[in-house]
Amino acid sequence: MVWTLGALAERVGGRIHGDPERTIEGLASLEAAGPKDLSFATDRAASALATTSAGAVLVGDGVVDQSPVDVVEVANPHAAFARLATLFDPAPRPAPGIHPTAVIAPDARVADDAAIGPHTVIESGATIGAGVIIGAGCHVGAGSRIGAGSHLVARVTVLHGVTLGERVILHPGVVVGSDGFGLAREGDQWLKVPQIGGVVIGDDVEIGANTTVDRGALEDTVIEEGAKLDNQIQVAHNVRIGAHTAIAGCVGIAGSSDIGRHCALGGGVGVAGHLTIADGVTVTGMSLVSRSIREPGVYSSGMPVEPNDQWNRHSARFRQLDDMARRLRALEREQGQENP
Amino acid sequence: MVWTLGALAERVGGRIHGDPERTIEGLASLEAAGPKDLSFATDRAASALATTSAGAVLVGDGVVDQSPVDVVEVANPHAAFARLATLFDPAPRPAPGIHPTAVIAPDARVADDAAIGPHTVIESGATIGAGVIIGAGCHVGAGSRIGAGSHLVARVTVLHGVTLGERVILHPGVVVGSDGFGLAREGDQWLKVPQIGGVVIGDDVEIGANTTVDRGALEDTVIEEGAKLDNQIQVAHNVRIGAHTAIAGCVGIAGSSDIGRHCALGGGVGVAGHLTIADGVTVTGMSLVSRSIREPGVYSSGMPVEPNDQWNRHSARFRQLDDMARRLRALEREQGQENP
Amino acid sequence: MVWTLGALAERVGGRIHGDPERTIEGLASLEAAGPKDLSFATDRAASALATTSAGAVLVGDGVVDQSPVDVVEVANPHAAFARLATLFDPAPRPAPGIHPTAVIAPDARVADDAAIGPHTVIESGATIGAGVIIGAGCHVGAGSRIGAGSHLVARVTVLHGVTLGERVILHPGVVVGSDGFGLAREGDQWLKVPQIGGVVIGDDVEIGANTTVDRGALEDTVIEEGAKLDNQIQVAHNVRIGAHTAIAGCVGIAGSSDIGRHCALGGGVGVAGHLTIADGVTVTGMSLVSRSIREPGVYSSGMPVEPNDQWNRHSARFRQLDDMARRLRALEREQGQENP
Repeated sequence: MVWTLGALAERVGGRIHGDPERTIEGLASLEAAGPKDLSFATDRAASALATTSAGAVLVGDGVVDQSPVDVVEVANPHAAFARLATLFDPAPRPAPGIHPTAVIAPDARVADDAAIGPHTVIESGATIGAGVIIGAGCHVGAGSRIGAGSHLVARVTVLHGVTLGERVILHPGVVVGSDGFGLAREGDQWLKVPQIGGVVIGDDVEIGANTTVDRGALEDTVIEEGAKLDNQIQVAHNVRIGAHTAIAGCVGIAGSSDIGRHCALGGGVGVAGHLTIADGVTVTGMSLVSRSIREPGVYSSGMPVEPNDQWNRHSARFRQLDDMARRLRALEREQGQENP
Repeated sequence: MVWTLGALAERVGGRIHGDPERTIEGLASLEAAGPKDLSFATDRAASALATTSAGAVLVGDGVVDQSPVDVVEVANPHAAFARLATLFDPAPRPAPGIHPTAVIAPDARVADDAAIGPHTVIESGATIGAGVIIGAGCHVGAGSRIGAGSHLVARVTVLHGVTLGERVILHPGVVVGSDGFGLAREGDQWLKVPQIGGVVIGDDVEIGANTTVDRGALEDTVIEEGAKLDNQIQVAHNVRIGAHTAIAGCVGIAGSSDIGRHCALGGGVGVAGHLTIADGVTVTGMSLVSRSIREPGVYSSGMPVEPNDQWNRHSARFRQLDDMARRLRALEREQGQENP
Repeated sequence: MVWTLGALAERVGGRIHGDPERTIEGLASLEAAGPKDLSFATDRAASALATTSAGAVLVGDGVVDQSPVDVVEVANPHAAFARLATLFDPAPRPAPGIHPTAVIAPDARVADDAAIGPHTVIESGATIGAGVIIGAGCHVGAGSRIGAGSHLVARVTVLHGVTLGERVILHPGVVVGSDGFGLAREGDQWLKVPQIGGVVIGDDVEIGANTTVDRGALEDTVIEEGAKLDNQIQVAHNVRIGAHTAIAGCVGIAGSSDIGRHCALGGGVGVAGHLTIADGVTVTGMSLVSRSIREPGVYSSGMPVEPNDQWNRHSARFRQLDDMARRLRALEREQGQENP
């Protein structure tokens, strides 16, 4: 794949400061790029920009003057880079058609231009939309609908009664529509509660490798349009994830919690069940949300590491905190203070 | 699926207050139910009950009078609801038989009424019991035994030397019998220790999507009857999980730990290796169990979120805790106190 | 499998104190072993050794005299045991050859003595080295290379552009080469950044069940030789994991972080993005690494459980810590102290 800088700039509406005939053969970071590579710089990357050996760099207007090499000036360098990266993506795109080893139920409907990979199984009544790509070893359950332009990369499981919007991407190992953890107490044992809801996933949702999304107990589990989920996430039954919310790896969201729109959950965050998180909330990594959050803002409870001997001292003192607080109060009283 | 309220009440031994000829076509929560739906109310749900539009509600005797609609009075509404939900579950139940694309070793034994899905592989010497359902893309290793009535939903991996009891449910992506993390130190490198134990899983165990259960290093990893595991859980080699224990999503249990019967581990809990947890212990979400727990009760260490600026102040003070404790002690000494 | 103690001792260069003609039919722990079993004892296991019923025990020179049964004296009993365990491992080893249900691209290169299991898919341009075993239901993407002697156990996904060294072991459910979580902000929505880097995995790496390793955004994600990863781990794009580092289950490592050589990360640890961890660092379970660690040593922030009522008191006091610190300072000032 060889492009001229001019052709690339035109695709993203950028303004070239340099040679439009320069040839670009790949993409790389500012640090690793060579003279045939295009890179990008945010306004914060000025120091890496100053020493780059890239052939050219996508930049915002604030740093045009600081580049030692040709630049393409754009409003949003990262977004422009994302758009151009699709031109250089080596990921194979299979041709339309159904692999002879795929097993398709007679009453499933598969669009003519969909691509269905080897050993994939599509069950009764399922609908596969236009331009969908389903890789090897996937499973689409009875009656489920895969919206146009969606991509199930490989070894994805979508069980029955699931609806995916358009342009949804599911990475390998994803499971959508598994039973929620519904248990009724009976004597001293647990009785399984059948999970008869479904899952509804909006347009442009992306779900990372080995993430699981359980079906609803009665009503549906919902992930709204544009939400982005990383790998190894657990979404329990009847959760709602609001539009354009981004969730990093290893997050667990317990049943029936309702996460707002435009939220960001850091890696390893845990959200207890039956909570509401407002729109625009950010939770930093490894925090525990055990009550509803009603106001937008940044919330934290992830405790950073210390050298182990210090940590042991401090965590031992933590277990004396109530005692320390009482003793502090007693001292204040002796000094005649009345602290609130 | 259309039932009369009378027929449903009869199935759960309930007493109708209302019209036994009322038709019920579905199940729903108190909030979402319409006039053709059956719902249920625990004693704590009195306010939702008062405003429900359900056709009828399963209730305990304490709230019969508070329902605006017909009720079926039962001893345990949630359990009765679980039983009736099986009647309305849309999950497809495949007919007995072996799909032509399944690969079954000549010396594997598959019960006549078992259902084996497409692209499933059953290896040498494996035994598949009566009424077992194995969905698409599963793998049962050499010599493993799947007890009667069990259900491997789809894309489940059971490796060699694993024994499942009866009515075990394994959801998609589950791996049972993977190698434990056994490493011997040799110089400054790690040497793999072959994992030659197996896994034994009792009757009525359910294991959620993408959960992993490692085989034993020498003796077996054991999950006792009636234990319920949610999604994304890691069970390391030689763990024992006691009967009727419930474990929520994203829990990790390190090697050789022994979890009692009738325990409950909240989401994201971590249990260190070689520990014992007594029967009847509850651990709340995102707690770390780093020592054995000898007494039943509720245990916690998950720290709840605060607004980030407050959190930063408090966690900085945490790293001064030992110093603060010493200074508090010094003040007490100056005041002539002898604190224990 | 029946061996004489003499034959086993010879394989590990051990010195027998006892009967070299003793027959050994299995391996077991000191506690569970019977008279036909071989066990092993580290120097710390002296009390279990004193009461063992094993046929013989591998021991270091320090405890030879304390064994009530025959011993084989070796420099490193655990490593010797690991070597002998391969003789008793019941895991099936498939014969070379390609199963008729496997789907192999015409231009993929598969070594003559490789074993390719049922329903496995190997895509265009992939290379499968000598002696490789790929179990059922695996997927090797376009152009990827599986080094000699490697083992993909079953249902493993290796996407395009991935290079595995020799003797790499990938357990079921592993995904290597899934897209990293690359998002560019555009207005109030997220734009996917195509992930065009690859993954390079060194010799003798082992990766546990359902662990995910994302491909690089631009340059490669790298796991160096001899690193050992347990189950349910998330390795984000452009992470580097140094040689001979061991990572326990449920760890999450965010993008572009660089973990040193000979490190050990305990279960459930979280590592934030763009950090550096020095060689020789140990992080204990459920700790959060939110800044770079420059010095070898042991680091912690996992808070151990307490009984719930105590925990609630202490965590409430935690949220008063800044206030307590100020009040403590005020008391000191009143006493005329000038604390630093």
